[in-house]
Formats: sequence, C-alpha cells, structure tokens
Amino acid sequence: MSTTPDSVDRPDPIDGRRVILVSNRGPVQYGRDGGERTTTRGAGGLVTALSGLGRHLQDGVWVCAAMSDEDVVVAQESPGGQYLPELGDDGLRVRLVALDPDAQDAFYTVIANPLLWFIQHHLYDLNAAPNITRRETDAFQSGYTAVNRRFAEVVAEEVDAAGGEAIVMVHDYHFYLLPGEVRLRCPGAVLHHFVHIPWPEPDSWRVLPPPMRNTLFRGLFGNDVVGFHTERYARNFLLGCQELLGLPVDLSAMEVVVDGRVVRARWYPISIDPAVFEVMAESTAVLDQERELAARRRDHLLLRVDRTDPSKNIVRGFLAYDLLLQDHPELAERITFLALLQPSRQDVPEYAAYVERIRATVDEVNDKHGTGAWRPVELHLEDNLDLAVAAYKQFDVLMVNAMFDGMNLVAKESIVVNRRDGVLALSENTGAHEELGAFAVTLHPFDLQQQADALYEALTMPHQERRDRRNACVNVVRQNDVAKWLQVQLADISRAAEA
Amino acid sequence: MSTTPDSVDRPDPIDGRRVILVSNRGPVQYGRDGGERTTTRGAGGLVTALSGLGRHLQDGVWVCAAMSDEDVVVAQESPGGQYLPELGDDGLRVRLVALDPDAQDAFYTVIANPLLWFIQHHLYDLNAAPNITRRETDAFQSGYTAVNRRFAEVVAEEVDAAGGEAIVMVHDYHFYLLPGEVRLRCPGAVLHHFVHIPWPEPDSWRVLPPPMRNTLFRGLFGNDVVGFHTERYARNFLLGCQELLGLPVDLSAMEVVVDGRVVRARWYPISIDPAVFEVMAESTAVLDQERELAARRRDHLLLRVDRTDPSKNIVRGFLAYDLLLQDHPELAERITFLALLQPSRQDVPEYAAYVERIRATVDEVNDKHGTGAWRPVELHLEDNLDLAVAAYKQFDVLMVNAMFDGMNLVAKESIVVNRRDGVLALSENTGAHEELGAFAVTLHPFDLQQQADALYEALTMPHQERRDRRNACVNVVRQNDVAKWLQVQLADISRAAEA
Repeated sequence: MSTTPDSVDRPDPIDGRRVILVSNRGPVQYGRDGGERTTTRGAGGLVTALSGLGRHLQDGVWVCAAMSDEDVVVAQESPGGQYLPELGDDGLRVRLVALDPDAQDAFYTVIANPLLWFIQHHLYDLNAAPNITRRETDAFQSGYTAVNRRFAEVVAEEVDAAGGEAIVMVHDYHFYLLPGEVRLRCPGAVLHHFVHIPWPEPDSWRVLPPPMRNTLFRGLFGNDVVGFHTERYARNFLLGCQELLGLPVDLSAMEVVVDGRVVRARWYPISIDPAVFEVMAESTAVLDQERELAARRRDHLLLRVDRTDPSKNIVRGFLAYDLLLQDHPELAERITFLALLQPSRQDVPEYAAYVERIRATVDEVNDKHGTGAWRPVELHLEDNLDLAVAAYKQFDVLMVNAMFDGMNLVAKESIVVNRRDGVLALSENTGAHEELGAFAVTLHPFDLQQQADALYEALTMPHQERRDRRNACVNVVRQNDVAKWLQVQLADISRAAEA
Repeated sequence: MSTTPDSVDRPDPIDGRRVILVSNRGPVQYGRDGGERTTTRGAGGLVTALSGLGRHLQDGVWVCAAMSDEDVVVAQESPGGQYLPELGDDGLRVRLVALDPDAQDAFYTVIANPLLWFIQHHLYDLNAAPNITRRETDAFQSGYTAVNRRFAEVVAEEVDAAGGEAIVMVHDYHFYLLPGEVRLRCPGAVLHHFVHIPWPEPDSWRVLPPPMRNTLFRGLFGNDVVGFHTERYARNFLLGCQELLGLPVDLSAMEVVVDGRVVRARWYPISIDPAVFEVMAESTAVLDQERELAARRRDHLLLRVDRTDPSKNIVRGFLAYDLLLQDHPELAERITFLALLQPSRQDVPEYAAYVERIRATVDEVNDKHGTGAWRPVELHLEDNLDLAVAAYKQFDVLMVNAMFDGMNLVAKESIVVNRRDGVLALSENTGAHEELGAFAVTLHPFDLQQQADALYEALTMPHQERRDRRNACVNVVRQNDVAKWLQVQLADISRAAEA
C-alpha cells in the first residue's frame, strides 16, 4: 500500500512545515587535531539515506547526540545548533544534544545495543540470557527513558519555535519513547518514526517484563506513522499491540487506535542512491583495488561483506562453503571466498567471541581444503570501502545468509555496480528478500546443505540466466531507490497531517 | 469459543463411530522378568488425560509405538492388537506398531525431540544451533516421514475395518504428517489432532527449511480440527499458515481453507482429574512422606516440581531465590526451597549440561546463604511422585517460572491438594496462566528481580488473600477438569463430522 506509484508523484508534502529529524548518530562528528577542531562527515547508511531530505528541510533541524568530547564542547557553544552549509541543497542546522555520560552509557550499552538489538534480531540464547536485574530496570529508567526525555525536550522546543505544527521524523530503536513524550507536549506535531531493524513477533518481546515492553509500545503510539522495511515487520508490530497490550488492531487498514488516535503501521523498504555507487566504482582508489583483485583472480569469486555481527550468520556461511568444497572437489583451486568483515562492537563479549569463532572456522576450512597454491577463504577483518566496492564489481556470487537482517543494503549496493553478471545468494530472512528474492538464489540461513547447494547452483548458472537475474535486480533497486523511500514516506506524512 | 458451556452438555457425539487414538507412547509397556512377561501401565500425563476416553471407545483402538523389545514381540504375536480389560470401562484394544529401529531412532532422536521440541519451546541459541545438514534432512525422510507413513497405514486399516467413517484422534508433535497421509487414504474419516506443546509464532519455524516446515503444516491440514492448549497457540498456527504458506486465514472464525477443505484451529486447555490427586494425597506413602517433610519444616516452604528441561527455567529460579535471600535477610533459616527435579533426556548433551548447571547454581546459593543449621535449597534429583504429592500438600508458594510451557499441569495438581492455602507463582508463558493467572502471582521468566519480588509478595501475603486465591484456583481446575477437556473436543469433533 505504501509503495503505490501514485503516492510518489504527489506534490512536496511538507512545504511550509519545519522538519525535525531525530537520530542517535548524526551527520557530523567533531574532534581535535592539535589545536584545531576537525569535522568528520558521518558515514553510516542512515546519513546517506537521509541526505535526500536536504531540499525538504528548509529551516529544519537535525537533532542528534553529542558523541565525542568535542561534540559536547560544540553543543555547549551553540545550544541552538550549528549551521552546516555542506549538508543538503539549502544547508542544514544540526543540533547536538549533550547528555549526562552515565545516562548515555546506560542508554546505549545496557538497553539499546544489547537488549533491544538482541531481541529484535533473535540473538539471545534464552536458556542463558538475558537475566533482567536491577541493573537493567535502573538503566531503562535512568538511561533509556532519561535520554528519550531529554531529546523530547529539545524536539518540543523546536516544535514550539515552529508554531507547534512541525513534522518530527524519528529514527530507529534508540528512541521508542520519544514520540510519546513529544505527543504530550506538542499535540499539533506530526510524528513519523522509522525503525531500521526487524520488528519481531510478539513472543520475542516477552523477554522484557511488561512494564518495560508496554512502555516501549506506548512510546511508539505517540507517532502518527510507524514505518518499517517490510510488511512482515509492520504486521508484527500490530500483532504485538494485540497480543501484548490487548488492543484491537485492524490488519487490513494496518492501524491501531490508541486513546482515540490512529497509529498507522507502514512499510518502506530502504534503499541506496545508485549514482553514488556508480561514481565510487570508477574512483581511482577502487580501480586500484580492483586491479589487485583481478591479478589474484581464480575462476570463481564468492564474496561476502558484513559487519561481524552474529545476526549476519558468518560462521554458518563458512560451514556451508566447507560442504560445497567437500561435495564438489572440482572447485579446488578454482574458487576464492573473499570475506570482507568489519569488526563491530568488540567491547561486547559476545561480539569479541564471535570474531574468534570466525577466525577459527576460516582456519579450519583453509587447513582442510587448502593447498600450497590455494587459500580457499581470504579473510579481511577491516573496514575498507574501496576494497568492498572493487569486490562488488568483481564477484560471481554474493553471499548474504543473515539469520535476521532488517534490510541488508550490501545486496543492493553490490548488484548495482557488479560487472560480471553476478548472482545474489540471499537469505529469506532479510528485508531485501521481499524485493529481490524472486531474482536471487534464496538461502535458508540454518540449513548448511541448502546453502552449499544454492551456492553451487549460483556458481554454475548459465550466463544468460545470470545476466537476466542481475538486470532484474538492478531494475528493482533503481526503481525503488532511496529517493523513492523518502518520497513515499513524505506522502504518508502528508496524509497523516491532513487527517 | 471451544469452551462455551453449551457444547459440554451435548449428547455423546461419537456414538456408533469407531475411535482410533494415536500417540507415540501408549498406555502400556511390556517387559521381561526372568521368563515372565511383565506389564507396566504408562504413567505420563497423556495416558491419564485420555483414560476418560474409555467409555467412548466402544470397539475403538489405541495405536502406539512398540518401545521395548518385548513390545516388539507382542506386536508380532498379535498384529491386530491386544485387548486390555483394565483400561477404560469397557476395556481397550491397544495396537503396538513395530518400527524399523533406525527409522524410529531418527524419528525420535534427530527430529521429534531435538528439532521440533526445541523450536516449539524457543530453546535454540540460534547463533550456534541448529545446523541443518544431510543428517537432518535424511532423518526427516527416512525417520519422521517413514514412521508417520507406517502409522498412517495402520490407522487406515483400522478406518477401513470400521467402514471408512471412523474418528481419528492424533496426539502431539510426533505425528504432524500422519493426518495428511490418512486423509489421502480415508476421505471419510474425521481427523482431530491435539498438540500438547506450545505452537510458536511463524518466524520460529523459519529455522527449518521450507520443504520441511511446509510439509509439517500440510500434514496437519489433513485434520478437521487442530487443537491446542490456548487461543494464543491456535492463532500462532493460523498466522503460520498465512506467513509461511501464503494461505488466506480467517482469524475470527479461526480456520483456514486448504484445497477446499476447512481446517479449524481450536483450543482446549488440558487438565487433571482432581479426584485422582485427592485419593493419592491420602495414601499411606504420601502421608509418610508428608510426616518427614513436616518434621523438617521451617516457616516457609517454597516448592518447585519439574523435569530438568531447560524450558522449565530452573536455573533462573535459583538465581531469583538468591536475590530474594539477599534482599530479605530476615528470611534466613526461616525458609526452604524444595526442588524436586526429575532428570530428563540425559542422553541429550544440552540436557546433561543443564543438570550440571542446576547442581552448580544450587551449590552457589547454599554456599552463599547457608549456615551450619540451614540449607537454603534442598535439591532432589529423582522421580518420586509420593514425595511430590506430599510437597504439593505442604507448600506455601509453588514456583513455576517456565520460559515457555504448553500448559504446566504441576500448577493444577498441586493447588488442588494443597493444605496450607499455598500461592501459585506462575510464569506468564505457561498455558495455565490463561486460566489461573488472575489468581496467581505472575512471574516474568527472564526478570530475576521481578521473580524475587513476586516470591516475596506471595510469601508475605495476608492469609485471607491466600485462601481466596487458592479457592479461586481450585474452582477453576475443578470446573475445567480433564473430563471437560475431553467433552469439549468430542463436541467439536461431532460438529466437524456433521459438516
């Protein structure tokens, strides 16, 4: 429903209203180099995805957390925000919110990243974790709730300054309580929330005690629209309203009525700006990396590009590759599995242990199948975008076997710039599978043999079929690009504002 | 809907139709003692629950697996079954099905008990398990499917012998494929399946590759009625039909139409025969155990009675007790936590490890809080029904903090015979919580502090309130006893037969 073409062509829906964007990580981070203040443009997908908002922002503002020491200094110097002319067509005001360090730490390292991220990605071994204790319930109050309230105060100030009728666009799992707080203070605001990670089924939330989980849902009810990547996540949200809070939901209209207000659940598959990757693909740095890859190239290049997050299912990917080599000895010395993995959250014990399991599994596969002349897996544990884009161009098969992944942009980025009619091997549990699954080879993330067989199918697929499938994928990504992602949301915001 | 009183008073609905009962474990097991054949009456809850069927069975038959070597001998001696006059008012024919040992082993130890049980109780640490390989897909074919087909042949023979119009009542997760097979062979049969464990939400099934999970659902579609303990499980089943198989479901009528046939999802909370426990409670053996308990009694007796299954959440129960003792030092030497735990499936590594974690946690709690005169936890790792019933009579608080539990009959058994106005402390994730939660103290299974606080509340509750709550619970159990569980199902079978 949210992706009908007619909704795209509507006129600019937020003309005349101030837009207030809220996210934890913002588009800029300040630092110190000697005596000089430095500025780093935020890299992550969120910043890229939202850059298209520039032309809509007018006198808008991006509210985000002060992360570095220098961010805090900047926040104190200019509490109303900094004007950054380089962001968007008309520039952008960025307002950094300085937080109490203990509150920020509890918010981020006790609640948002372990608890919410783990629940929403099915990462808990429930037999062993989590154990909710006073530490968690205290952190929920003094961390998550306090940070959400502080942000809500800032947002309310901005709404008031705009005459009470602004549009607030809230991003991700850090701010589930903010909409409720803003709604209380600013009844005239239009609130829209986009959740960038999966929304799981109701029972997953039962890991949290009711006072916590109900508060999270009730916070989200402050929104007019809650957006997800897929219809499945949107429906899970409404089912949670029904099962956990006993609310009557309408699964046809995809809405729930709470305290007389309609809250709409919608889906907007996030995407990329293909042009950005096309330009990057021709940069000198990428071409250099590509030449090196070409020099080492064997018949088949199997690629994966991921953060080392257990939800990405990296270990099972190597075990499936092990089966592939076992079942097809003719592939020996003719294939390389290039794994470009960016170490992630290494301060979290589960994540550090995961990198060790990755290393150990790669060693086993290389010891078992490798020869003096051939290393079956090439593992790079680093963040190297140039190398990643060069590999995007060169892969024959891209493996995305995530256990659960909100969208997975690697699939979209890589297929657009690929030069070899490469095939996507894509987990059915990624958001991207709803758009690209019909043209990909589907992977079942817990079935090693199926993954091995599917990789073989992809590697040996007739050339014309590979080309047809890739062309179809590229068309989907070009059609559903990040601009459309944004436009459709703005159209829905406009409807909500009218209602 | 399934529990409306009017459906209970309908006339015997299966008069004149042969009833064929199917379960893996049957009501009798044969053995050898020297030269003599021995007979052991099956103990489990299923046998007890179904004993009330006796009067409906007429020339019916109970089809179950030959388990012991002597069972196989009996099956070969009398392939049409043994008549057992002691079962039911009119006796009962029991037909043991001898199975190929490899098929039986794969069916039970590769598919039913690890894979299905773990999925349906959320027991997997998905980061590490399961890894589906050829072993599992082969066992699904040569074990689970083969055993279900063999049983379906036997059932079809029995249906044919009854003129093609028998009623088939299938039990539990061992036989999800059987109804589909029987439906193909016997279009005139009425098929009813009762699932004794939780039915999880759709994503839980995504652990299985589609050919496996779709086959399980399609097997169940052979039924006219699929019964669960709770409305939540029944709805999860229909949501799975929608999300995983793309079928249109009707969540008001609670049915799905498959290939032009209506499959109804219903819920029937299983229960006990209170009279059986009342009689047991006055037996000499129980009275002896009760005297011993009384002699060692302190002010408060906290009790748990469980199999050592990780789904029972036993370790977190001890951790919550640790917090209770820490928060309330006044309880020192005044309370005993009696844990009566029957070792379960010790051939499964996860289960053996779990018993070790239980022992270690109990030792820690006893070391930390105990004194020369007081052991805070008394752990019994044995199967001792007399002691359990004696403890049922004597507890002040019964702890049931299961992570996920289809029903939990311990809660029902124990409250009925309790003599001290004991309080149920009951996990919200048990089926029993839908009936008894309003009169219990609710436990949130992952929240240690909440459990500790709830135990304290239960232990210090005013006497009148304890009495009122227990009376309310006992009324519920007496009203919704196992006879009613059966009657309501028979009424629904009758409706399905008419339709």
